[in-house]
Amino acid sequence: MLVNGQAQNFLPIGDRAVQYGDGLFETVKIKARTPLFWDRHLTRLRASCKRLQIPCDFQLLEAEVSQVLSSIESHDQCSHILKIIVTRGSGGRGYTPPPIVSATRIVQLHSFPDGYARNAIDGIQAQHCRHPVSRNSALAGMKHLNRLDQVMASMELTETASEGLMCDDAEHLIEGIKTNVFAVLDGKITTPALTEAGIAGIMRDVVLEHFSSHGRPVDVRPIHIGELSGASELFVCNSVLGVWPVVALATAGDNVSFPIGPVTREAQGLLSDTF
Amino acid sequence: MLVNGQAQNFLPIGDRAVQYGDGLFETVKIKARTPLFWDRHLTRLRASCKRLQIPCDFQLLEAEVSQVLSSIESHDQCSHILKIIVTRGSGGRGYTPPPIVSATRIVQLHSFPDGYARNAIDGIQAQHCRHPVSRNSALAGMKHLNRLDQVMASMELTETASEGLMCDDAEHLIEGIKTNVFAVLDGKITTPALTEAGIAGIMRDVVLEHFSSHGRPVDVRPIHIGELSGASELFVCNSVLGVWPVVALATAGDNVSFPIGPVTREAQGLLSDTF
Repeated sequence: MLVNGQAQNFLPIGDRAVQYGDGLFETVKIKARTPLFWDRHLTRLRASCKRLQIPCDFQLLEAEVSQVLSSIESHDQCSHILKIIVTRGSGGRGYTPPPIVSATRIVQLHSFPDGYARNAIDGIQAQHCRHPVSRNSALAGMKHLNRLDQVMASMELTETASEGLMCDDAEHLIEGIKTNVFAVLDGKITTPALTEAGIAGIMRDVVLEHFSSHGRPVDVRPIHIGELSGASELFVCNSVLGVWPVVALATAGDNVSFPIGPVTREAQGLLSDTF
Repeated sequence: MLVNGQAQNFLPIGDRAVQYGDGLFETVKIKARTPLFWDRHLTRLRASCKRLQIPCDFQLLEAEVSQVLSSIESHDQCSHILKIIVTRGSGGRGYTPPPIVSATRIVQLHSFPDGYARNAIDGIQAQHCRHPVSRNSALAGMKHLNRLDQVMASMELTETASEGLMCDDAEHLIEGIKTNVFAVLDGKITTPALTEAGIAGIMRDVVLEHFSSHGRPVDVRPIHIGELSGASELFVCNSVLGVWPVVALATAGDNVSFPIGPVTREAQGLLSDTF
């Protein structure tokens, strides 16, 4: 693990990530020492740094990522997860950042979780979580470090549920705890609008672009959670786990089953080279 | 500074405060080695730990606070600020906490900022910030570590503004960046309802209880930011700075002035023993 290029696994308590969750992160799938969707991750991180006005040195960050990846043995074909955190660094007067911000860059390598490949093949059970997603158009879309909502929702999950679906306070589906969600509704591929809440995921973009460029643009709109009971297909995705079909969804009073349909398999197929 | 009773000023990067802002904090005014409103701070922290399901050992925490306060010289009559952070500790699988949580307790002592006493006497200029407060009834009221909203709002402040007023996405006044807000509207003492957003401050409670027990219960209701232009008094408060009169408020197209009125002075007066 590297912190600003130094091998260390701790952070000053004055760092604004500790004090305020004042930063951003990316989780990147590594396959045979290569980061997947790397340009997209960098582009999103750059854009979010700009929105939050965090001045990050991307040349140093890329060098540090290379250094961490070089620690993987060259014959190692296993997948890993790279986690990058960029914080606004230390200092300032309370919430107000210091006049000159020196961002903190953290680059960590994790092993790849067991069971992810199995979930992609068999599909998963998902659960509707009651904890709502916070609503704020000024933060929507970004993968920032204020993630209490996801923590609270994950604590609701029963043992059989591999993912939880989260709504805003108006019961509009926003996202999975760690994924984005697509449903086929009335024959149309559909995904929630993320203008008010949620993370605009890399894999979500990949899926959106694929279907758009193949003449079947995805309907991006507010989706009431109740609409999912009528879905002919349901899947969740992110850039690390790829696409997981949802074969069963548990809600407060109901359990709904879904087949693994052609849209889901097509979304998975477009990733066959990388997953 | 103590971390779980040990003198150290760093935290493992795996701590969930770093990764997710998964924790709570309190800032306590210390006067002559004595924490003010200590029972109220403890009660709020206990209640929030319960809501977030963070198992904190309060006996150890109180002993650590005593230890940190004993580092203040006995003849030192200066004010200090004690900051307590309680996190959900390290570990877990992504957002999901580990089966057995070992919370992290951080106790820090800071010097008291210059200018706070002056602001209480002269009043301050405040500014309406455009960054909205996130809306989420499941997190409302708590002083949790997801504070990006406050950071972003504080970056809007001009040099003359000592505090920023924040609204939700419907332009309802919620709070100051680091304070709660009271206004006298149509002769009635009024403060925003915090059911959807905002921190339920200790000093806010003290003020609410005072006026309630003196036959003038405060009207706690949604307040549109536009209503403030008709206020006869406006003040902000928290348990560290006490009560600051707002004598001028800058909004997008307008500057409004307010006198320092009898309600504001009464709120300050009830604190004369401690501030």
